[in-house]
Amino acid sequence: MSTSIKRPKARLPRGFRDRGADEVAAERHMIDTLSRVYESYGFAPLETPAFEYTDALGKFLPDVDRPNQGVFSLKDDDDRWLSLRYDLTAPLARYVAEHFQDLPKPFRRYQVGRVWRNEKPGPGRFREFTQFDADTVGSSSPAADAELLMMVCDALEALGLRGKYAIKINSRKFLNGILRLAEVDSVKTGAVLRALDKFDRLGETGVRALLGEGRKDESGDFTKGAGLTPPQITQIMRLFMDDADDLTKIEGFSDLRTIREILARGGYESDRIAIDLGIIRGLEYYTGPVFEAQLTFPVKNEDGEEVVFGSVAGGGRYDDLVARFTGQQVPATGISIGVSRLLTALRQRGLTGETKPLIVILSLDDQGKAFQTARELREQGFRAEAYVGTRKFGDQLKYADKRGAALAVIEGADERASGKITIKNLVAGAAISKSIESREEWLHARQAQVTVDRGELVKTVREMLAAHT
Amino acid sequence: MSTSIKRPKARLPRGFRDRGADEVAAERHMIDTLSRVYESYGFAPLETPAFEYTDALGKFLPDVDRPNQGVFSLKDDDDRWLSLRYDLTAPLARYVAEHFQDLPKPFRRYQVGRVWRNEKPGPGRFREFTQFDADTVGSSSPAADAELLMMVCDALEALGLRGKYAIKINSRKFLNGILRLAEVDSVKTGAVLRALDKFDRLGETGVRALLGEGRKDESGDFTKGAGLTPPQITQIMRLFMDDADDLTKIEGFSDLRTIREILARGGYESDRIAIDLGIIRGLEYYTGPVFEAQLTFPVKNEDGEEVVFGSVAGGGRYDDLVARFTGQQVPATGISIGVSRLLTALRQRGLTGETKPLIVILSLDDQGKAFQTARELREQGFRAEAYVGTRKFGDQLKYADKRGAALAVIEGADERASGKITIKNLVAGAAISKSIESREEWLHARQAQVTVDRGELVKTVREMLAAHT
Repeated sequence: MSTSIKRPKARLPRGFRDRGADEVAAERHMIDTLSRVYESYGFAPLETPAFEYTDALGKFLPDVDRPNQGVFSLKDDDDRWLSLRYDLTAPLARYVAEHFQDLPKPFRRYQVGRVWRNEKPGPGRFREFTQFDADTVGSSSPAADAELLMMVCDALEALGLRGKYAIKINSRKFLNGILRLAEVDSVKTGAVLRALDKFDRLGETGVRALLGEGRKDESGDFTKGAGLTPPQITQIMRLFMDDADDLTKIEGFSDLRTIREILARGGYESDRIAIDLGIIRGLEYYTGPVFEAQLTFPVKNEDGEEVVFGSVAGGGRYDDLVARFTGQQVPATGISIGVSRLLTALRQRGLTGETKPLIVILSLDDQGKAFQTARELREQGFRAEAYVGTRKFGDQLKYADKRGAALAVIEGADERASGKITIKNLVAGAAISKSIESREEWLHARQAQVTVDRGELVKTVREMLAAHT
Repeated sequence: MSTSIKRPKARLPRGFRDRGADEVAAERHMIDTLSRVYESYGFAPLETPAFEYTDALGKFLPDVDRPNQGVFSLKDDDDRWLSLRYDLTAPLARYVAEHFQDLPKPFRRYQVGRVWRNEKPGPGRFREFTQFDADTVGSSSPAADAELLMMVCDALEALGLRGKYAIKINSRKFLNGILRLAEVDSVKTGAVLRALDKFDRLGETGVRALLGEGRKDESGDFTKGAGLTPPQITQIMRLFMDDADDLTKIEGFSDLRTIREILARGGYESDRIAIDLGIIRGLEYYTGPVFEAQLTFPVKNEDGEEVVFGSVAGGGRYDDLVARFTGQQVPATGISIGVSRLLTALRQRGLTGETKPLIVILSLDDQGKAFQTARELREQGFRAEAYVGTRKFGDQLKYADKRGAALAVIEGADERASGKITIKNLVAGAAISKSIESREEWLHARQAQVTVDRGELVKTVREMLAAHT
C-alpha cells in the first residue's frame, strides 16, 4: 500500500526575493554609511511598526492616485482593518500627530525600513523593498530643505560617489510663479529655467542673452535663447538678483533661491545641485520644493544592458500630511533614498565596503582542536570557521571552495605529532601583492600549500592573505 | 454652514509600538556586535522576505500547537494565501529546500529580522518583534551545536555580559536514554543530572557520592544524593566516562557529552555552560539537544519590580523541517536571540554603546553661516546640527534642551563683527573631568557660557565636552 503525501512546494510568492550574503553585506555597509552621516547632522533614528490602522495610513501613495489600492491589508482579531506601510512618510505623519506636544520643533528624524506594495510584480519591480528617509517636520524655512540636500550630498560622497551624481531641484510654486509673473508662454519655461540656472557660470550678461535671442559661447557655438521680450527679461532678472519686495509674491522662487544660496555657501556648487524643470515627482502630493538625486554614470540592468538609471533619491516639501489627523497644517520636508536601486549602482561600481577573507579549518579527527585553531585566528582579527559537518576530507575541501574561502587550514594527526600545520591557498592563480619583497616570502606566499611550524600559523596566514590581490 | 470632517485618529494598532532614538541606537549597537561575532565565525547573513506562501510557512510555531492560528495571513491579487513570517526558522527551511543543490553543506547562516504574531497583546507582549537567529543545516555533528553555543557565549561577552549569563543545555534523547538505561525512577532524574553536571569540579568520587546517598563538602555541608543503587551508579558512570559501545545506544547522552567536551576545551567552563533538565523548550519541535541562554542578574519589569528574566536566547536541534518540503530528512540546529528581551537587559545595565553628544548651532540671522559652523564641527568628528526652524532665540534654546544637546553654539551679528563665538553649556552641573588639569582650563570648562575667538571654536568645544562626565 502506497501513501500519497501532499507536500508544500518550496518557493517564494511572486514579487518577493531572498537576499544572500554579498547583497546583505553591501546593503549593511550602505545603510551604516548613510546612518553615520545622518546622525552626524543630528537627525535621530525612529522606528515605526510594519502595521498601521488602514484609516490612519491614508491614501497618500505619492506616485499613484488609486486610493488604498496597492496596499496589503487584513483584519485583525478585533475586526479592525490593518495595513502594511507602503512608505515611511505616512507612518511619520501619524507619529507626529500622535506625539506633537512632546516633540522638539522642528522634529528631524531618519528611518530605514521595509515597505510593501500589493502591486503586480515585474522585472526589477518588487512588492517588498527598503526605504531610507529623512524628514524635517515643523519648519517652513528653506534652510530645512537645503539641509536635507547637503546631507544627501555628504551621504552619497561618503559612499564613494563624489562627482558621480547630481541633485535636481524644482518647485510647484516656483513653476507657477515664473509662469505668472513673467507672463511666459508655457512652452518657453524650460529654456527660461535653463538660462537662469547658468547664472553662477555666465553672470547677468550671459543669462540675459539666453533669455532673449540666444548666446554665442567662447568656442563660437550658438545656444538658442528663450525668446522673451526685453521687459520680461528685465522683470525676471530683477526677481532673480534683487531682494525686491516682489520676491514675496513668488514664494517658491525665493525658496529655491535661498536653498541654492545656502548650498553654494556650503561649497555645494551648481555642478552638483541644479534647478531642473523636468523634476515633477508627484506634484499633487508635494506643496513646495521637490528634489531628486540622479547618478551620472551608466548602470547595467539585469540583462547587462546599460540603462539610464533615473533617481536614487527623491523628496520634497509636503505640508498637508499631519493636517489629515489634526486639522492643523504642519510644514514638512523630506527625502527618501531607494535602497535597492542605489545598492545596485554601488555594487556595480564595487563601492560595497570591505569583506574579510574567510579561513576554513578542516576538521579531520579532532573537532575541539579545529575550534581552538579557528578561535586563535579570530582573536587575531581574521574571519575563521571550523568545518562542522561529518564528511570526508575531499568534501571538506569542496565545502571550503563553495564558501569562497581564501585559505584552508589543515591540522591532522601527522601535523600535530610533528608540531606542524598545513595551509592551503584556495584562490587559484592569486596575484602577488607588491607588499611582498623578498624572493623567499614570494615563493612562500605563492605556493598552493605550505606546511609550517604550528607557531608560524598566524604569520603565514597573514602573508598568504596579503599575497591575494 | 458648518462642515463636519471625519479625521482618522492618530494612533497605533494594539500590540505595536514606535521606537525612539535611544532604543534604536541601543538595538543597532547590539545587532552590530552580534553580527560582527557571527561573521567572525564565518556565518553568512541571509535575508528572506516578510511574506511566505501560507502552505510553505507551515504550522511550526515552536511554542504553540495551534495550527496557523497566531499568524497574519491575507490573500494576494492572485488569490493565493500569504502569511507574514512568525519566526525565521520556517523561512529558512523553505530556503534550504528551494536551493538545496546549490548550498554548501553544512549551510550556516544568520538572519536578523522582524517577525509577526497575530496574538492578543498584553504587557510586554507585542505582535511585532525582532529575532536574531543562527542555524547550521546539514550536519548531524554535535560540533555544530557546540559551535552555536561558543558563538553565543562570545556574542554575549562582546556585549559586556561576561560572568552575567549561563547557558543551559538539555536533550530529549538524553532524557530518554538516562531514564531507560539506568532504570531511574523519573522523580530522581533531576538529582542524577545535577550530580553528573558536577563531574568537572568533583571528579568521579564526588559524583558517585551524589548519585548515591549524598556528599559532605569541605565546609561540612551535606548534599543529599539521588539515592541510586550501586549497580545503577556504576552503569551511569561507565556511560559518562568511557568510550564504550553502549554510548551509541543513548545518542543524546553522548551528544551532550561531546558538546560539553568541545566547550570545555575551548575554555567555556561549566560555570557558563551546564546541563539542566529543566530546559524543556518545545520538545515536540526539537529532536536532539536543546539550549537556552539565561541572564544571571535581576532585571526590572515595566513597573520597576525586579523579576526573574528567563531566557534571552534559545534553540536546539530540529531535523524535520526541511523534510516537510522534500521528504528528505536534513539535520539542523539553531539558536535564536530574543532581541527586545536582551535589549531591555542591556539598557538597564547601560551596555548600549556610546552615543556622541550633540551640538546645536543656534541660527540667528545667517542660516548659511550656521550650516558652515555645523559642518566645521562635523568635520572634526562632532555631531552637530544647525537649527532649521523659524522661531526666536529663546525657542531655539528650548529646542536644543529638548533635543538633549550638550552644547549650543551662538554666532550672532555681534559675535561675527568682533570675530568671536559663544558656546553655551547645556548640561546643568556638569561634573568636571579629571582630564582637565590647569585651573584656567577648569574655570573655562565649567562656565555655563563662554565667548572666545572664532578660531578657538573647536578647541573650546572639545574642552567643554571633556568636562561633561
